[in-house]
Amino acid sequence: MDAISVIRTKRDRGELTDHQIDWVVDAYTRGEVADEQMSALAMAILLNGMTAREISRWTDAMIASGERMDFSGLTRPTADKHSTGGVGDKITLPLAPLVAACGVAVPQLSGRGLGHTGGTLDKLESVPGWRATLSNAEMLAVLESVGAVICAAGDGLAPADKKLYALRDVTGTVESIPLIASSIMSKKIAEGTGALVLDVKVGSGAFMKDLADARELARTMVELGTAHGVRTVALLTDMSTPLGRTAGNALEVRESVEVLAGGGPADVVELTLALAREMLTAAGVDAKDPADALADGSAMDVWRRMITAQGGDPDAPLPTARESHVVTALESGVLTRLDAYAIGVAAWRLGAGRARKEEPVQAAAGIELHAKPGDLIRTGDPLLTLHTDTPERFPYAMEPVTSAFDIAPEGTPNHHRPLIIDRITPTT
Amino acid sequence: MDAISVIRTKRDRGELTDHQIDWVVDAYTRGEVADEQMSALAMAILLNGMTAREISRWTDAMIASGERMDFSGLTRPTADKHSTGGVGDKITLPLAPLVAACGVAVPQLSGRGLGHTGGTLDKLESVPGWRATLSNAEMLAVLESVGAVICAAGDGLAPADKKLYALRDVTGTVESIPLIASSIMSKKIAEGTGALVLDVKVGSGAFMKDLADARELARTMVELGTAHGVRTVALLTDMSTPLGRTAGNALEVRESVEVLAGGGPADVVELTLALAREMLTAAGVDAKDPADALADGSAMDVWRRMITAQGGDPDAPLPTARESHVVTALESGVLTRLDAYAIGVAAWRLGAGRARKEEPVQAAAGIELHAKPGDLIRTGDPLLTLHTDTPERFPYAMEPVTSAFDIAPEGTPNHHRPLIIDRITPTT
Repeated sequence: MDAISVIRTKRDRGELTDHQIDWVVDAYTRGEVADEQMSALAMAILLNGMTAREISRWTDAMIASGERMDFSGLTRPTADKHSTGGVGDKITLPLAPLVAACGVAVPQLSGRGLGHTGGTLDKLESVPGWRATLSNAEMLAVLESVGAVICAAGDGLAPADKKLYALRDVTGTVESIPLIASSIMSKKIAEGTGALVLDVKVGSGAFMKDLADARELARTMVELGTAHGVRTVALLTDMSTPLGRTAGNALEVRESVEVLAGGGPADVVELTLALAREMLTAAGVDAKDPADALADGSAMDVWRRMITAQGGDPDAPLPTARESHVVTALESGVLTRLDAYAIGVAAWRLGAGRARKEEPVQAAAGIELHAKPGDLIRTGDPLLTLHTDTPERFPYAMEPVTSAFDIAPEGTPNHHRPLIIDRITPTT
Repeated sequence: MDAISVIRTKRDRGELTDHQIDWVVDAYTRGEVADEQMSALAMAILLNGMTAREISRWTDAMIASGERMDFSGLTRPTADKHSTGGVGDKITLPLAPLVAACGVAVPQLSGRGLGHTGGTLDKLESVPGWRATLSNAEMLAVLESVGAVICAAGDGLAPADKKLYALRDVTGTVESIPLIASSIMSKKIAEGTGALVLDVKVGSGAFMKDLADARELARTMVELGTAHGVRTVALLTDMSTPLGRTAGNALEVRESVEVLAGGGPADVVELTLALAREMLTAAGVDAKDPADALADGSAMDVWRRMITAQGGDPDAPLPTARESHVVTALESGVLTRLDAYAIGVAAWRLGAGRARKEEPVQAAAGIELHAKPGDLIRTGDPLLTLHTDTPERFPYAMEPVTSAFDIAPEGTPNHHRPLIIDRITPTT
């Protein structure tokens, strides 16, 4: 077995054998297959595709490159959620404690933001004292005692994926549905969750701009999870406009706490409840309606215990930015478009995100939205507020904002997709 | 400008701009673009192709990565020949002195063998004392005094190609017509020859197995050369069976000397004369018929002076192998097939070639063919003789030999392509 023959097979539109896949993933993880060989293979996969069997085996090989976690000793069933990422997507923060409050344990291994989409760990790190890194034993202990844990994935989980993802990031080979699906699912399957709900986002602020691509990715992941014994379902959800009214780390924590307190923006509440219901159904638990757990304070109670268990102070004031800048409407009418990608880029430029993995983020930087698509606007109304600790970034951040929204004459019909576009379940 | 955007352009079937091409080739040569980025780009080029404009610019960028030689000070016009490589292809050895004997200077920068095809420098190094490496000044001096020089290309010529070729070799990205054409032509154009004749081989023992691919490669290179001011013509020639009756270093030198002495196998003589006439025509010289230069000893005279000028002794006995093994016919009939690839692999395994660049080759190892397609065979006749200094390799070398030939009942019609299949000239 050698790397060139594996590359040639895929280059020439052939189907990789199980043995070729097992060998190349393992040899790459060990460093026997070089980066320049794997990137050529990744490009051939991106351009020539993979069959369902190849994707499944590739996922297996990535799982086999590291450890597998085991939650079977827990007293409660487990369910996890994965979002493909979007702007203002803070859903994990209220969702994990909410589902735990309804009787299902949520082991949420999360990541950091890169580019215009935020990362759950970056958001939670704006809570004073909270730490993202737990040992496996600590993670299990929090999961058993609190019912929900959000922490960084350990290095032992699917190391092949970690290495391959970093390579794809610099070689123009990220946008491959087989590679995206196997990357996400290898980590989730190795993590050992019993049920998994996927939030596959589509629209300008999402990784997938196109509905057909998003649907194919969702289908691929649902089939992969199901084949590996994880009860998996996916929601296709809209990411053409930001979720909620904030994009930025501490800003999104504040909004998440509002949701846990029974308030918060309607779209965040709607998606949180929909995903919670899917997780509970997938885990086979229907003791409590999640809407009640928001109303009666039980979800907030889990949140407070979850934050405290990881060293955070749920009562400490969240950081606020040193400077802010309000953008007001120059005309009256109805807001027909507020572009997720543009807002994501602006928040990123304000300091909420990072351009390189090793950069720090600003806890307080980001954007508050004072209007959402469909809202009526009067000239002079505040549309959004930019926050940053580094005000020299305002002009750079304003660039995408200036073309981020459309205001049309009052009465113009508004054609927006529903927030929840479709639900993808296993075909068998 | 960054590598990922260039990769994405080609990945998404776009056309690279001049600026993108110039930048990525230069940045790769300098090490700013990483190997894993260039291999992903090479795979995208292999799968999505390049326009004629992109190939031409890519060639320019590779030429610009290094020095250009200048033969304009020579008293005679120059012509060079390039073969895409085959089994038993020793044509350069008699051809260079033959063309020089007819009044055209031949600056033949050659390479070493890798895989089943031999290298001209490896062959000549079986001549005692001969050395492949000359400085540019030495090369020019031999060219002026002798009229022909065969030596290793210096490191200064198209270093981008050198680096890229080594990368393509290990990443399954060799078989791309745009990349092959630009690799060959960047070196030949940088070398500064006035005329160039390409011998594009097609068949089992060639790089191009398929006639349409070989024709496309030939056309691409002829257009590239012409556009860069080099009078370029290509012959498409058959490589389904070995050229001549030998494959191996010293064995091929001996056969070449037979041709220079006015004898030698008919196919080697035919192709040598055809290429010589093309080179003379392209160089605009028609003072002497090359057949006369073989008959009157003038080509042999140039050979002897050329070998002597590089330290070789043209009268020294060539090395012979310590062991040999004769394969005889098990049936009578007509030899309908003698496969070039199988013979090339067998010669390589006997020690005539190398699997890695740093390996030495055996000067005396190789194969002598006692019959050629179309010949009548009797049971017990010798078909071929294997030579090696390491007889433990015989079984390994015999593997491809056993299925290398077909013997059919006498009278079976023989459908062989002509040796010279087609001639490709500039379309304008």
